[in-house]
Amino acid sequence: MAVRKRSSRDIRSESRLDVLHALLAQGGATRNQLARGTGLSLATVATVVSELLAEGLVAETGSSTSGVGRPTTTLAIRGERGILAGVDVAETYVSTHVFDAALTELACTDVPLDERVESADHVVEGLVRSLDEALEAAGRARSELLGVGVALPGLVQGRAGTMSVVVPAWHWRGVGVLDLLRRRLDVPIVVENPLKAIATAELWLGEGRRVASMVTVNLGTGVGVGIVLDGTVLRGATNSAGEWGHSLLVHEGRACRCGRRGCVEAYVGAPGIQQTLREIAPDHPLTGTQLQRDFIGALGAALAAPDPDPAVVRTLERTATYLGAAIADLVAIINPERVMLTGWTAWALGDRLLPGTHAEVRAQAPRGTTADLTVGISTVRGNSAAIGMATLALERFLGDAGLLTTRSPLAL
Amino acid sequence: MAVRKRSSRDIRSESRLDVLHALLAQGGATRNQLARGTGLSLATVATVVSELLAEGLVAETGSSTSGVGRPTTTLAIRGERGILAGVDVAETYVSTHVFDAALTELACTDVPLDERVESADHVVEGLVRSLDEALEAAGRARSELLGVGVALPGLVQGRAGTMSVVVPAWHWRGVGVLDLLRRRLDVPIVVENPLKAIATAELWLGEGRRVASMVTVNLGTGVGVGIVLDGTVLRGATNSAGEWGHSLLVHEGRACRCGRRGCVEAYVGAPGIQQTLREIAPDHPLTGTQLQRDFIGALGAALAAPDPDPAVVRTLERTATYLGAAIADLVAIINPERVMLTGWTAWALGDRLLPGTHAEVRAQAPRGTTADLTVGISTVRGNSAAIGMATLALERFLGDAGLLTTRSPLAL
Repeated sequence: MAVRKRSSRDIRSESRLDVLHALLAQGGATRNQLARGTGLSLATVATVVSELLAEGLVAETGSSTSGVGRPTTTLAIRGERGILAGVDVAETYVSTHVFDAALTELACTDVPLDERVESADHVVEGLVRSLDEALEAAGRARSELLGVGVALPGLVQGRAGTMSVVVPAWHWRGVGVLDLLRRRLDVPIVVENPLKAIATAELWLGEGRRVASMVTVNLGTGVGVGIVLDGTVLRGATNSAGEWGHSLLVHEGRACRCGRRGCVEAYVGAPGIQQTLREIAPDHPLTGTQLQRDFIGALGAALAAPDPDPAVVRTLERTATYLGAAIADLVAIINPERVMLTGWTAWALGDRLLPGTHAEVRAQAPRGTTADLTVGISTVRGNSAAIGMATLALERFLGDAGLLTTRSPLAL
Repeated sequence: MAVRKRSSRDIRSESRLDVLHALLAQGGATRNQLARGTGLSLATVATVVSELLAEGLVAETGSSTSGVGRPTTTLAIRGERGILAGVDVAETYVSTHVFDAALTELACTDVPLDERVESADHVVEGLVRSLDEALEAAGRARSELLGVGVALPGLVQGRAGTMSVVVPAWHWRGVGVLDLLRRRLDVPIVVENPLKAIATAELWLGEGRRVASMVTVNLGTGVGVGIVLDGTVLRGATNSAGEWGHSLLVHEGRACRCGRRGCVEAYVGAPGIQQTLREIAPDHPLTGTQLQRDFIGALGAALAAPDPDPAVVRTLERTATYLGAAIADLVAIINPERVMLTGWTAWALGDRLLPGTHAEVRAQAPRGTTADLTVGISTVRGNSAAIGMATLALERFLGDAGLLTTRSPLAL
């Protein structure tokens, strides 16, 4: 791949993204407010707004008078333009969220999956069922879908036409899941890795467009990061950037399910945290908890007790040390302004992990990189992989309408 | 720092960089050849060329006839437009290289520094002496300098006006080296970290503009990387991106001179390689070699012998394993197309290290990230930090002339 040349088309596309993000963040806004909020000229805002009005994605919702001068029109994203589905296929469930075009969630459904082994047929079956249930719960029809975004728990590599999906947990290697999906759903589909989806959610709805560099750290069964540089998610040569979960924390350390030893994931993924507890207290009852979310939830409950379980306290302390050391490596290499923790372990334990993690990052990262660094918990709540996939589906819809140039290589 | 907005000015700046790089790569070229080589339209090339002709940086050097049609003019960078100095201040020496405006080296000088402790005054003194000696060797005067670029062996942080320099080896913390430099040299100066300089050299003269993502890995006393994404060197929030040398290879491992334990540098920096030899053969005579370059040179000589020293062979094998595991982490996080080794350890031992390193990268990096990954030795020879600093000085000169918009925050 050669260096990507930018064009004036890319600049117009960026302006449209800026306006959309401002409308999402502020709810409604006038053209003047949009110009102030985005730093774009009023003329550019007026052009962009007229394009978005023509596409039906933005509507004039009323007028506001500021006391002097003539009233100005308020604009908002037109939720009724259509609906979007974001599907988070994880190793243990398929979660489908239906949104209107303004990214307001209308309904969601979860279908459990067996976390040990799944055939592509079975997963696609679960996905279609979950989607139809979510649409029914929202009282909407497939025909109203502007697009469906599907996050798959593995590497989604290559470009349209030559894309392959590798899901180590299910022993998938480039299986024809994309063909299966296309055959079952007659709507535009995008597929992505959840790490890229989560970073995209943070770009559209969180901190991503306020800073020049940000890393989203996803903590669940697997762990990984999304790297956001100047408003763009870093994809890498084969769309695999962000596999921090399989970077090294301990040379020749714990066996990781990827086959390597000492990966970050083997220490701060949910099974890794359980292993830490096992090392601290081999006979602790929680070492036997089967389901990972139950285990993480139980840790949270044990910590919230009036007399917190000391083995759990030590497990959290050690996890914060591992997490901080691993994040310090990211800070050394990427030097971001923000690190945002996300994912269900972050929701359940983030407040408990944050102080120790932050202290370890400060102790371990190169001098001068942490003074202005914020480490926080993402403000995008709900299923951020599903939200991110819905925004990617919206990006694709806008791309097909000629309004966005996108680097996403993953539309089917 | 908010997301950087691109403008049509940036696009024109990129076009000028494309044309300059093509002229540097091809020596001379016609406008048609430049259009083919850069992918720019002939009209854009014509505009850019006329701007560079007006600035005196490009000249019409002759005409070529292709058999049919009228003869076309050949263009080349006009070396005599002025001179540039690139200064590599390392922990053990100051090396100054003088170039003409076409980046052809005219002369160079080395001044040794005591690698243990240096005052800023003393370093600036050595730098000025080295620069004057290099100018004299080239038969040129300070007044001809378009700019001087200085690589400092530490973190160069912040923006113009608030910039600070941290050199742990010399216990420098934001010392007024910049003021000292400005006072002694009445020419435009840029300062940078050598990692950014080396990546810039690879961008202008090596592989950097042929691929969308590249990592340059510098191996010397210290080690670190330059990350090049879409033709731009990643700087990070405080210009500290690329401090891979102080990312973790072995949790709780060898003490690193940065104060942390287990850093990559403690294993693949020259003193780290010596420590590996010490662990393999505590009484080996080379464990006592004082100067690091002598040590690395001696390893190369021992390997080239008809009957290579088995302890040295094992040291190289283990170093390749460490290096490959550490590069695999970069590949997991950044997923680049190219990894280019550079620096004096790479020149001396690279051919010996490469097969083992590449095998370890393939074994350790996430599936699918290494099939198309090239790991090689940089083709930019000579002192790439000095070359990079001269190109940064040229960038600054072109920026002052209104021809380039640059992200470099480091001009004084």
